[in-house]
Order: sequence, then structure tokens, then C-alpha cells
Amino acid sequence: MARDTVRCALVGLGYWGPNVARNLADLPDAELGFLCDRDTDSLQRLARRYPQARTSTEFADVLKDGSIDAVFVATPPVSHFELTMAALGSGRHVFVEKPLTTSSAEAERLIDLAERQRCTLMVDHIFVYSPAVAAIREVIGKGDLGQALYYDSTRINLGIFQRDVNVVWDLAIHDMAIMDHLFGRTPTALTAIGRAHLQGQRENLAYLTFFYADNFIAHVHVNWLAPVKIRRTLIGGTQRMVIYDDLDLEERVRVVDKGAAIASSAEAAYDLRVNYRSGDIWAPRIGATEALHNATAHFIDCIRKSGRPTTGGSEGLRVVKLLEAADRSLAAGGRPIEL
Amino acid sequence: MARDTVRCALVGLGYWGPNVARNLADLPDAELGFLCDRDTDSLQRLARRYPQARTSTEFADVLKDGSIDAVFVATPPVSHFELTMAALGSGRHVFVEKPLTTSSAEAERLIDLAERQRCTLMVDHIFVYSPAVAAIREVIGKGDLGQALYYDSTRINLGIFQRDVNVVWDLAIHDMAIMDHLFGRTPTALTAIGRAHLQGQRENLAYLTFFYADNFIAHVHVNWLAPVKIRRTLIGGTQRMVIYDDLDLEERVRVVDKGAAIASSAEAAYDLRVNYRSGDIWAPRIGATEALHNATAHFIDCIRKSGRPTTGGSEGLRVVKLLEAADRSLAAGGRPIEL
Amino acid sequence: MARDTVRCALVGLGYWGPNVARNLADLPDAELGFLCDRDTDSLQRLARRYPQARTSTEFADVLKDGSIDAVFVATPPVSHFELTMAALGSGRHVFVEKPLTTSSAEAERLIDLAERQRCTLMVDHIFVYSPAVAAIREVIGKGDLGQALYYDSTRINLGIFQRDVNVVWDLAIHDMAIMDHLFGRTPTALTAIGRAHLQGQRENLAYLTFFYADNFIAHVHVNWLAPVKIRRTLIGGTQRMVIYDDLDLEERVRVVDKGAAIASSAEAAYDLRVNYRSGDIWAPRIGATEALHNATAHFIDCIRKSGRPTTGGSEGLRVVKLLEAADRSLAAGGRPIEL
Amino acid sequence: MARDTVRCALVGLGYWGPNVARNLADLPDAELGFLCDRDTDSLQRLARRYPQARTSTEFADVLKDGSIDAVFVATPPVSHFELTMAALGSGRHVFVEKPLTTSSAEAERLIDLAERQRCTLMVDHIFVYSPAVAAIREVIGKGDLGQALYYDSTRINLGIFQRDVNVVWDLAIHDMAIMDHLFGRTPTALTAIGRAHLQGQRENLAYLTFFYADNFIAHVHVNWLAPVKIRRTLIGGTQRMVIYDDLDLEERVRVVDKGAAIASSAEAAYDLRVNYRSGDIWAPRIGATEALHNATAHFIDCIRKSGRPTTGGSEGLRVVKLLEAADRSLAAGGRPIEL
Repeated sequence: MARDTVRCALVGLGYWGPNVARNLADLPDAELGFLCDRDTDSLQRLARRYPQARTSTEFADVLKDGSIDAVFVATPPVSHFELTMAALGSGRHVFVEKPLTTSSAEAERLIDLAERQRCTLMVDHIFVYSPAVAAIREVIGKGDLGQALYYDSTRINLGIFQRDVNVVWDLAIHDMAIMDHLFGRTPTALTAIGRAHLQGQRENLAYLTFFYADNFIAHVHVNWLAPVKIRRTLIGGTQRMVIYDDLDLEERVRVVDKGAAIASSAEAAYDLRVNYRSGDIWAPRIGATEALHNATAHFIDCIRKSGRPTTGGSEGLRVVKLLEAADRSLAAGGRPIEL
Repeated sequence: MARDTVRCALVGLGYWGPNVARNLADLPDAELGFLCDRDTDSLQRLARRYPQARTSTEFADVLKDGSIDAVFVATPPVSHFELTMAALGSGRHVFVEKPLTTSSAEAERLIDLAERQRCTLMVDHIFVYSPAVAAIREVIGKGDLGQALYYDSTRINLGIFQRDVNVVWDLAIHDMAIMDHLFGRTPTALTAIGRAHLQGQRENLAYLTFFYADNFIAHVHVNWLAPVKIRRTLIGGTQRMVIYDDLDLEERVRVVDKGAAIASSAEAAYDLRVNYRSGDIWAPRIGATEALHNATAHFIDCIRKSGRPTTGGSEGLRVVKLLEAADRSLAAGGRPIEL
Repeated sequence: MARDTVRCALVGLGYWGPNVARNLADLPDAELGFLCDRDTDSLQRLARRYPQARTSTEFADVLKDGSIDAVFVATPPVSHFELTMAALGSGRHVFVEKPLTTSSAEAERLIDLAERQRCTLMVDHIFVYSPAVAAIREVIGKGDLGQALYYDSTRINLGIFQRDVNVVWDLAIHDMAIMDHLFGRTPTALTAIGRAHLQGQRENLAYLTFFYADNFIAHVHVNWLAPVKIRRTLIGGTQRMVIYDDLDLEERVRVVDKGAAIASSAEAAYDLRVNYRSGDIWAPRIGATEALHNATAHFIDCIRKSGRPTTGGSEGLRVVKLLEAADRSLAAGGRPIEL
Repeated sequence: MARDTVRCALVGLGYWGPNVARNLADLPDAELGFLCDRDTDSLQRLARRYPQARTSTEFADVLKDGSIDAVFVATPPVSHFELTMAALGSGRHVFVEKPLTTSSAEAERLIDLAERQRCTLMVDHIFVYSPAVAAIREVIGKGDLGQALYYDSTRINLGIFQRDVNVVWDLAIHDMAIMDHLFGRTPTALTAIGRAHLQGQRENLAYLTFFYADNFIAHVHVNWLAPVKIRRTLIGGTQRMVIYDDLDLEERVRVVDKGAAIASSAEAAYDLRVNYRSGDIWAPRIGATEALHNATAHFIDCIRKSGRPTTGGSEGLRVVKLLEAADRSLAAGGRPIEL
């Protein structure tokens, strides 16, 4: 039987926190009962919007509030582990912004504790909950691509947002989570090459390559100093290919028939040269639901029905392990790291 | 004093040869005097268009024709060396399709011979002659970018065109030539990771990274099995950045003011997040002259005025050395190759 | 001296009302004190988000609440007049969704009453408050365009949203308000040609032409049954031209140098043919502030400082007069209507 | 039985003539035997390319050459009638650039003469021969659109090319020919509103509306002073809609499922608002054959097999009648002209 309304606390009211608050406030089975941030300005701004919620600059006050069932952690990554440990320790369900933690050892301890406490632990691998990725998973699931050959992603824009993590932890993490969800397999090795172009900053540009047991390969380009915003993923298969352009509001996902891609004659080769493509394109309708709505609703649902989150502790851990390996490769100038 | 009209032979009438013929035919100081290809169909098709030219399936006939001053070699790469050696040996000026040769040893022999024969040797690094690359070189030359930080290029499409070379020799070569022309510096090392997804074929997908003595880095993504055609290069600098999209007929080159890219405050960081960019964009008018027109005209001009081609033997050699290193890295699974 | 916080009621919680509520809730000098809608579901949904506000299904309750200073009317157009009359009559300031009213006679009565009551009356001509239109107004104000030659707007998409008005009142009204703001002049005549393609529905497609005393001309294409969403306005001048594409997040506003548009020679004409443009393009950075934030903040500011709204009653009236003329022309099969 | 090779003369070597020459030179069943232009520079330039062709500045010399079977008229419109009359009068087949003539009376005389002489008369309504329009015709022919509701075309760019005709005769003519080909029906009336913004020039901007016996409507926007090049046609139907963007090399033709365009509920209306579309998109592969190749090959084929051209005299006449009506409407300030 489903439980009653889940009363929630939100910790961390910086960039992403207000979006979590907005989505929580609209969920019929959740209640935003507590807002917490060390910054009083942010706290007051959100308190104006949600006057029904208690507020405090101290996380301890959240834990002391016996009415709170679940905690949403939207603070900088470095504090995820400590806050989540404390919340799980006090028997609360926890929804953590990506990345789950800043180390795999920490992630393992969170998983253990959540299990012992029988609490729901979910990491916000946000793209997993987007209608576009769901549509791509359906295409792959039906076998329309044939055998997958490569995953290639460009995720770049202008702006240094994160000061405590590098661009891999900020942006490439999305691709790690998407790949984990779409292909359900773990690479055997990875390399990461990066550059820190700004004095005193972490890497702002990186190229990651993921190697698999077979011929499949994945590559991710992330950059905070790009002159143009790009969010585009190509997935190549033996039968069809997918173009996923998250900024193309009209055709976010396109499925391309490969057609006569391999020219068997000189004329066919010429035709391919002057032509842009050799097959039809199909762009399925993608729903407009906000990914964060789906993610928060899924978390509440898992709590009420004792379900297992699509992106729970183990999914979070797998991605943190990839991030750690990427950091090791970056530090070693791009040396391959076995996984 | 400038010489008279240069009488030219064209060897190789496959995909690119007819374009060379068309441009040659329109040059006031050149004459298309001889067409040569082993394939009689191609030969007859071109002969219909240029009935003034002699034709033969034998290259030896070209060399025997005393009226021919210059030879254009547009055959598959593997034959470039032999044909060019013979032509230079007989005192002809030679214009060779890219790549100059398939090995650096061969390229060095061509350079030597051209020098001894006092013949003009030019390799068709075609993008060097495009109005777009010329515009970018001007922007860089004026110092508008500040210090260059990275060069990132995506050059992908659908279609296997080349059977005797891999995708690096077919597509990445363009970026090697463009970088050589724009930055005038040689990388200290490179890595190339690739995949041959099709039975019996060479690599159809590759990621190349070029390392330099300082913090500058270059990366090139080439792919013959991509669902979409992309020809886009990003050049990042400390002051401004360039977007060069060769398929954007309206704004082929854009110069982006970096503006407040490094957020010094939380609000600035937020503004960068929700905004697409932080500075103005300027798109200079790019002329419509065909690059191959510029290249062929430049070759004829060098012959008549005894000038040095912008992309002569040494430029061709530098690029072939990079291609060789890329092949070694590919074969070693992406191991860095010192240059 | 500026007044204290303005306490606001919001009437109408359909599509646009929640956006008004969200912006109001974030204004430091305003308070969302009352929510009103006949539909109890909408009322409850918003009440969850803004528990501090009183709620009622009866507008009379709003007027009875002595703490309310200002009323935001976001109901269907047909009720704007009656609600606004009542609110002004009780001494409240009023912010009305576009259109101000459904007839010019009604608009004139509202203007009179607002003046007599010394209340602020503002119509939400939303695009007037967008950063993009502000940037265009600045370009025009500096004289950069030279003499304005034409205004051409395409505002189309898929979806019948409004049941009580036709596509002209829903979409073309935006262009009427933008033109009024940018050029500050009234056309001498207009024609409107439309089609009602769906049984029992008003016109879903219309073409409007606005004639002026001189050679300037304006044209607006609106369509609810278009296969693609377009929001693009071209403004031509003797010196420069503006492209305003509201869906181009990267380059929302572009200023194009006209350059050698008028070919004085055969070669220049040829160059124009093969080229896409003849001058540079400049895309100024456009701020990311939401237009509705600017509009609501401006209304509150006008109340507190007794200022005159940029889009007050007379601006609303001018646009309603154009809408009435458009309806007369539509009914007469596109006959010109003198203004 | 098919005839032998057709020997052709080309008159008029301005902008379009060289394209005709290039396509003719590649047709296996045609021969470019004569080049004619009053301008000796143009004549010499083309003679260099096609040394096999005779040349003359006098059209009379073409007619005197007994070896010539067919004449291609690519001169300015004002001379089409006289040259075509003379060529038909001497028993030659004629291919005329659009428009067929500058008056319907002239077009009727050409049709008569061609019939009496049993000569093929074809007008180069070039888009009728493009793979994109062929693909759209196929979609319409299969009934995929349902009942056609509207045709809306934007055909604008920067550049005054034509000095002897206005923008309607230069650009809108393409839409008249496309509509004639796609729908096979004649409008009952049309209006044309235009402006001549440049001293001493004909109209550079025009809006044309075509009325039909039923609810179908067509609208064409042509402009020589636009800051951006657009070639986009929307065709709306009760079941599906077509987007034909001739500058979108990847997806030139898209077929859009209309889906739930008419919102039957508040939620559906909201979904349509925030979403860009309500159905799938399908972009068929469009061949890369040049339209002018198809047109010239079709003409040669009609001559050899005594076939009737798809765009013969009567198609040319229908379009000239529309152009004449447009001119009358322009002169009358946009008054409707019955057809």
C-alpha cells in the first residue's frame, strides 16, 4: 500500500536547488517542509516563494525536525557524502544531486548505510529522466540500431560554473550516466586528456575515450571555454544511427537510416560525396515533461511504494568510479586506466 | 618577367579530377592540354567536355608530349610518388592532390628532386586556399584571439569514399594542413584512437589529439559513419574565440567575444548558466571564390613568376609526418607518438 | 517618495496566470495576496504553490479585500473590460493581459476611469519588455538602420489555443504592439486576409498588411496550423537590416550590413547571386531577463513612483483599434480599411 | 524510334547561360554546337570552355547554321518572344528561360507557332524538375496531406539582380510554376502588394495572395532587400503538412504529422503551447541530381521521342497570365484581380 504524503527538506539553494523546490512544490504526494542553506540571502529568497516551509542555516535543524521524511541534497559535491550519511543515519530517504559523492569509497559507504537503514537513496542522474533519452532507449531496445558501434558526445559551452570540480565531474558525468542507462555495460578502460587554461582553476576542457571489450567505443568532449553551446550525441549502429541534439527543440532526437553508406561502386561513392545522406530521417515526437519533474516524482514514488530507483546507489557508484578513473588519467597526461 | 600561358596535363579523372579540369579551363594563363586516366569511360566523359585536350590512358604519353609544362596529379594517393617523380624528372612542374605522398621518405625525395630540377612542386592542401581559412588567419594575425588555447575540429559524414587510405588520411589531413597554416608550429606529440567497424576496411572513425610545447592543445574527430555531416572547427583564445562552420553558408566564420566567461560571483555564474553567451558575435563577410580556383591559380602564378607555393613540398612533408605518426598511434591502440 | 510593498491579487489562473504569479512572487516590492479563478482545480494547484495567498472563486471577494492594492487580470479577453472596470472603480491599479479589451469603446472607458481614479492601468504587451526588442529599439534609435523600409513578421506554430478570439487577436497583436513601440507611428490603412480551416472555429491563418503615409510597409503572417514554429521578424532599412529570431537562442538579434546590395555591374550582380550576403553581421549580446519579470516589475514601479507605464491605456487602445480594423478587413475578404 | 544526337545552340551567356552550357555538355544525346551573345567578353570566356562550339554575336548566324536542331534562349525576358519566334519559325525546337514571354499575347503566339511547326517548345520552370518538388508531388499524390489547406512561400534574399523585371517576375514566378505543377488548379483571383524602395527601380518587395474556388489559399513573399536568404515553402493539409526548405541540405523536405493540433482540452492546449509539435516528422531522402540537368535532359528527350514537355507552352502561358495579373494588382495598390 502506498504511503501518505512525503514531507521533504531541501538542503542547498544555489543554482539547482530552486529548480528542485519548484518541482517538489508541484508534486501531489510531496510537501516541501524545510529549506536549508548557509547563505541567508538565498534562504530568504526561497522562503518568500515557499512561506509554508521552515528555514534554517543549520543542517542539524533539519535532522531534528521529526516531520521530515526525505532530504534533497543540492549542495556542492564535496559535502554530498557527509550530509547524506547524516540524513540516512537518521532514517531519512535521500535524493542527491550528481555526483553521488566525490569518491567511490564514500559511495560504497552510502550504499551500505541506505541498505541497513532500509532508506531510498537516489542520485539525480537527470538526463536518465529526460523524455529524449527515454525515446533513444526505446529505439535501442527495439533493436533498430543493429549492433551499436560508437557513442560520441559533445557537451560544451561558455562559462566556468563549478569551482570545486573540473569539467569532467560537471559535464562528462552526464554522458557516463546516459551510457550506463542506454547500454548497461561497463568500459574496460578509459583515457582522459584535459587542459586547465585558467590560472588556479581545474581542467576546463577534456576529451574522454571509453574502451569496451568489443569494437564499441565512446568519446566525450566537454569544454567550459567554448564559443558556442553544443549538446549533441551521436550513436552509430550497423543499421541505423541516432542524432540527439538537446538544443534542437524541433527535432531533439532523429533516427537516420544508414542506407547505402558503404559505396560498393565509384558512382555510389560519388553520390555519397555530393549528397548529405543516403537514407530517410525519422524524428519521433518527444514529450515536453521536465526531466527534474520525472526524477523527483520517481523518488517520491520509490519511497511510497518501496521501489528501487532507476538511478540508485549502485548506478551512482559506477559513475563515480568512472570519474575517479578519468581524474587519474588526466593526472597522468592521458594514460589509459583499466577499470 | 612573367612567362606565357602554362600548358597543363591532368592525370586522374575520378572524383576530384573533373573539378581541377573545370578550374584550369577557366584560368586565363593556363591551358588544359592533356587528359590521362586508365579508365576509358572517365576519359571519354571528360574528353567530351574538353575536346581541345589530347587524351591517353598511358601516363608515358603525357611525358612524351613536349608541349606540356605542368602536370596535375589527381590519382589515388598510392600513385602520387611515382607519377610526381616521373613528371619532375622530366622537368615538369607538379600540382599533387593531398596527401603529397604516402610516406615521408617519398616526400623528401620529391622535395629534393623538385629543387634540383628547379620545378614548382605544390600539394593541394585545399582549405589553405579557402576564403574562410584566410579570414580566420587574418583574425589570428591581428592578435584578436589573444593567446591561442585550443583547436577543436569535427569533420564527419556518412560514406566510405577511400578504399586505399583510412579516415585520418582522407579527412584529418585537412585539419593538419589548416593548423600548419594558421599557427605555424609543430606539435611535440600526438595520439590517435580509431576503429575499423567494417569488415576488411581501414579505420572509419578516429580521434586525434595533438600536444604542443605549451598549454595549447588540438583535437580532431573524423568519422565516415556519422549520421550527420559536420565540418566545424572551434578555436579558443584568451580574448576571443572562432567558430568556423563550413556548412553554414550565412555565417561561415564567427568571432565571439568571450566576455565575462569566468564568473567571479554567484550571480554571474547563474547568468552564464541561463544565457547562451556572454559577448557579442561578429560574422565577417566571406568571399565566395572557390578554394580550388585559388589553389590552381596560385600554382600557375608560382610557375610564371618563379614563386614559392604557400603549400609546397615542405608543407606537404610536415603533414605526411603527422599522418605517419597518427598511423603508428592507431596501430598501438592510441599510444602517444613523439614528433 | 516610493510607496511600500504593493499587495496584489491575480485573477485568472489558466495558461498565463501561473507565470504572472511566479514573477510576482519574486518581486521584492510586491506581494501576491489573493488568487482568484472560477476553476477550483486551478485554484487549488496555485494555492499549493502560494499558501500565503487568500483564494476565492468569486472576483467580488477580491474587491472586498481592503488589503489589495493592485489587480492582475489574466482571464480570457472577453472578460477583461468588466473585471478591469470593477477593479479600477474600487480604486485598484490594474495590469491586464493583452488585449486590453475586445473593443476600442471599452478601452476608451477604461482609460477615462483610470484617469479619474488616478489608478495605474497597464496592458501586458509582453514583447515590449523583452531584452531583444529593447536591443532592436536601441539600434533603431541610434539611426543605424537608416530610413526604415519595411517590417515583416512570421509568427506561426501548430496548435489552436484560443477559442474566443481568432489568430489575429492571439498572435498578430504582438507585432502591432512591437511596431507601435519601435516606430511610434500609426498606419494609414490595413488589410487582413484570413481563412478558418476548421469547422466552427475562428480564422486560424491570416496575412496582414499595414500601409503608412510614406513608402514604409509592414506585413504579418500568423498561423495556428503551421508545421513548424517560427517567430521571426525582419526589419529593412536603407543602411542596415535586422533579423530578430526569437527562437534562435544564440543569435536572437542580428544586424546585417547591407553592403553592395544594389549591384552596379554584372560582376557585382553575379557575386550577389552566388553569395549569401554582402556585408558583415553583428549579433549583440541579449540579456536573459524574462520579459514578464520586466513587465510586472515596471507595473509595480509605476504604482510606487506614480509613473506612466510604457504600455498604458492609450497604447492598449491603439492596438485594439488595429485589431478591430483587421476584423473588419477579414470580414470583407481583405478589403483595405482606412484608419 | 529515337532520333540521333540533338545539336544545340545557346543564346545568352549571362548568369544562367553558363549553367545551361555545362549541363548540355554533359548530356550524352546533345551537343553544344553554337554559342551566341552580344557581349564579346562573355562569348570568349565560354568559347574557351567549349572550343568545339561555333560562336557569334549575331543571332541570325545561329539560324543560318543548318546543323543546329534546337535553341536554348537564356537572354533577358524582354527578348524571349522575338528570339523564340525566329527560332521556331526556322523549325528549331526551343528551350526558353523563365518567364516564357513578358505577355500572354506573346506566349499564345509562340504556342501557335510551335504547334504549326511541330517543334518542341519548353519553358524552364526549373523547380518543377528538382528532386525536392518531385518528392513533394509524390507525397501529395499519395493523399498523405489529406485536403490541401494552404501554400505559403517565403523566397527572399539580398540583391537586385534583374533590371528589366520586378521581383515578382524574378522570384514569385517560381512559386506560380510549383503550384501549377503540384496542385494542377488555377486561382480565381489574386492580389499583389509591393514596394519599390530604390530610386528608379521596379518593385523589390511583394506579397501575393492567390484565392481559389474553395477554402484553399496561397501566399508568396518575395523580397530582394532581405537581410537573410530564405527559400521555404509550407504546405498545410488536413492530415499532414510539408516543410520544404531548399537551403536545408540535410532535410530539404519534411512531412509533419499534424497530430493533436486542435486541443480538445485545457491540458492538451497547454501541452501544445510548451511543445514545438504534436506529431512525428519524416524527412525522405532527396536525390542530389541538379534540376537543370533534369530539365535539359527532359527537353532533349521530348525532341528525340516527340514527347510533350512537362512545362510546355501552355504551362508557360498560365504562369505569364498570373504574372500579368500580379502586375495589374501591384499598379492598383493591391486591388484583387479576377482570373
